[in-house]
Amino acid sequence: MTTTGLGGAALEAFRARFGEAMSTADAVLDAHGRDESGMEAARPGAVLFARTEADIVDALALAREFRVPVVPFAAGSSLEGQLIPPPGALSLDLSGMTRVLEVRPGAFQATVEPGVTYPQLNRAVRAQGLFFPVDPGAEATLGGMASTNASGTAAVRYGTTRENVLALRVALMDGRVLSLGSRARKSSAGYDLRHLFLGAEGTLGVITELTVRLWPLPTARLALRCAFPDVGSAAQAATVVMGASAQPERLELMDARGLRAVNRHLGLTEPEVPTLWIELAGASAGALEDVRALCEELCRDAGALDVRVAQQPEELEALWRARHHAFYALKALYPGEAFLSTDLCVPLDALPEILTFTEDGLQAEGLDASVLGHVGDGNFHVLFHAPPGSADWARIEALYARLVERTLALGGTCSGEHGVGLHKRQFLRAQHGEAVELMREVKTLLDPLNLLNPGKVLPDPA
Amino acid sequence: MTTTGLGGAALEAFRARFGEAMSTADAVLDAHGRDESGMEAARPGAVLFARTEADIVDALALAREFRVPVVPFAAGSSLEGQLIPPPGALSLDLSGMTRVLEVRPGAFQATVEPGVTYPQLNRAVRAQGLFFPVDPGAEATLGGMASTNASGTAAVRYGTTRENVLALRVALMDGRVLSLGSRARKSSAGYDLRHLFLGAEGTLGVITELTVRLWPLPTARLALRCAFPDVGSAAQAATVVMGASAQPERLELMDARGLRAVNRHLGLTEPEVPTLWIELAGASAGALEDVRALCEELCRDAGALDVRVAQQPEELEALWRARHHAFYALKALYPGEAFLSTDLCVPLDALPEILTFTEDGLQAEGLDASVLGHVGDGNFHVLFHAPPGSADWARIEALYARLVERTLALGGTCSGEHGVGLHKRQFLRAQHGEAVELMREVKTLLDPLNLLNPGKVLPDPA
Repeated sequence: MTTTGLGGAALEAFRARFGEAMSTADAVLDAHGRDESGMEAARPGAVLFARTEADIVDALALAREFRVPVVPFAAGSSLEGQLIPPPGALSLDLSGMTRVLEVRPGAFQATVEPGVTYPQLNRAVRAQGLFFPVDPGAEATLGGMASTNASGTAAVRYGTTRENVLALRVALMDGRVLSLGSRARKSSAGYDLRHLFLGAEGTLGVITELTVRLWPLPTARLALRCAFPDVGSAAQAATVVMGASAQPERLELMDARGLRAVNRHLGLTEPEVPTLWIELAGASAGALEDVRALCEELCRDAGALDVRVAQQPEELEALWRARHHAFYALKALYPGEAFLSTDLCVPLDALPEILTFTEDGLQAEGLDASVLGHVGDGNFHVLFHAPPGSADWARIEALYARLVERTLALGGTCSGEHGVGLHKRQFLRAQHGEAVELMREVKTLLDPLNLLNPGKVLPDPA
Repeated sequence: MTTTGLGGAALEAFRARFGEAMSTADAVLDAHGRDESGMEAARPGAVLFARTEADIVDALALAREFRVPVVPFAAGSSLEGQLIPPPGALSLDLSGMTRVLEVRPGAFQATVEPGVTYPQLNRAVRAQGLFFPVDPGAEATLGGMASTNASGTAAVRYGTTRENVLALRVALMDGRVLSLGSRARKSSAGYDLRHLFLGAEGTLGVITELTVRLWPLPTARLALRCAFPDVGSAAQAATVVMGASAQPERLELMDARGLRAVNRHLGLTEPEVPTLWIELAGASAGALEDVRALCEELCRDAGALDVRVAQQPEELEALWRARHHAFYALKALYPGEAFLSTDLCVPLDALPEILTFTEDGLQAEGLDASVLGHVGDGNFHVLFHAPPGSADWARIEALYARLVERTLALGGTCSGEHGVGLHKRQFLRAQHGEAVELMREVKTLLDPLNLLNPGKVLPDPA
């Protein structure tokens, strides 16, 4: 499939329709040529700052007419190269579509434009005693989170973005705008096409509106910080906690390097040893007491060296801010270096094994990396780092591939929450087998000209 | 699209491949010609009792060769005519595929054949302290529950079947068998094609294997029974409880008629007034005390006349058995009559309004019906009854259509958990608009000859 790209006539047509909402300024093109993956940047042909669903529909119509690839863009926080444009592409910037269109507190739902960030949504609904639980860490937008099926620390209790999107409006490449899903909490009426677009990374359609689930803010919270002698025993404890009736809100693993990084970056004084952070929440402090005692006992039985409780709101806030900044804190620890993060997710019973395999691999290759994990979900990140162009990178990529291979053999996935983008296309066939061909057929059905974020998610045909 | 059906040559080919696993005995054909909808029965051309995935693949190949429609069948407990075969169809009976292939307690998952029922699965995993939470009431199979996205009383806490299926194997009409999803608890690797087949009622492929999520059995449980002066105030109380941090395991509405029915059918002595049944569960009896007090206070503030607590296991079991048998108990109350159940589901804040609208409609039409609901999800059933052929039926169907119309105007769905089958096809376009056309395109992609459960789910082309 050849695409013409944003040449003279096409650019003229876009300018005629959108005027100053179109930009080809160098700084704008640069800002839309990269994400947070650290992958090689590439400028789009132009950027359109969309303001309305009609803008999106018209942009797709012009893209179809002139065969221009389109890359939906908002916060720019994707981690796998999802936003890096192919030559001559239109970067369709939705970050200005920031209206919270409706909050229905009694229905526990809000309808938003795709450029609304999850912190913005949380500020808008907090006074009603509600919150949106998915917290990928960056100032991500809901459109982007829906497109990568982002999750974060609270997915262990509330599910990922996928489980928290009730309804979508999606603009298709052929001009249709479809309403998918329902505002009811559940539905069995017809094929559930929502899920085709959730996690599709903008390759099947452009999300123009989302109705998401909100949850009541728990009245009481506390967090346990349980220090372990090694990452493996911490992971083992996490699986035991998940098997109890504790129903944690969050269950996170921080390794010694990660804690060193957040201590330095945020001025904390956490002990720099492998640690589980377990958050519990409920209707009252009294209701949490038995669960706290249970979790503490389970962790001590599993070898915890020390268990400390945080109950003050400021203390809890500092903890979770630290967790959310761990990625940036680690980057700050190694200035000038390049980074690569895995996003492996395994069935819980395989977590100790894959973490031990990871540590052994790092040691054998003489590599330094930090391990952080949403371990209640079996999801963990190995954050590799090395100077750009260093010989370490070949060993890092080889170990990365071995980690994916072992993860798939254990029944896991190469991506728990970051998506595929450019970097993980190489693993998709090993993970999904023949189902990749059906994915390709669905792509062809919805985007026969291959204009929507082409070259992402799907591997090249065999 | 014309289909040949199971004529002489086709039947001979099926018999040559499957031998005695094929049946055309009258009693067998009769048993495969109906479900629990009460809709007009129709015999299939023959029944194949499949035992393996290879049986299913070969049956689909023969069906393709001879243009035979195929209706997947198992427990026969669908409620919307999903299992009623078109002329000359093969009823593909999967009820003999009852192997629990693997239980991985440490991963909180089990892999089963599609004919395994949810009670069978629960018996298999109970000793490990685990359970599968979706409980539609009938002795439904997991293949059937996945195909209608069934739910039940515990969906308010644990989600529907959709949220509890991690991975599927699906046989397609073109001979492929695909593995979809992953054994990890979450994944962002590629399009999530699982969800196309979940809720597709056997029209897109045949599920040959499922890997489902299991959950730890809570250590402590109790149930509140809160009596209200009317259904509307009970529904209002349900929305208030959902807004608190109570996280109920179950939140059910029983009306006076429903309670009268289960009292008679099961020998209970529940007060015959509109009642909320609220189940709470947690790590210990102590941990539940504050939540119980909170729920009781909220219900009394919302007008509850009486609140009673059940804590003994036998008492709890009797309660939920009663709820699960309510549909049959109501049928037993009106012997010889025909029944029709709605399956409406609205956003929670619309629940009191639609219930009042329902009561007004029943009164205006002079109709008698019972209202039961999974009201924590906004899902409720109006169980109409009248003698077969009675003039009441025209008024019942008209009121049914008005209830759906109002439900859709409130942002709800015509089916919360039963699926579309034959009866609700008429509402699909009003609910989904143009998205119905994309559903049809997906159907054509996966089943171009329209052989898989034809005439179900999708409305006839406009």
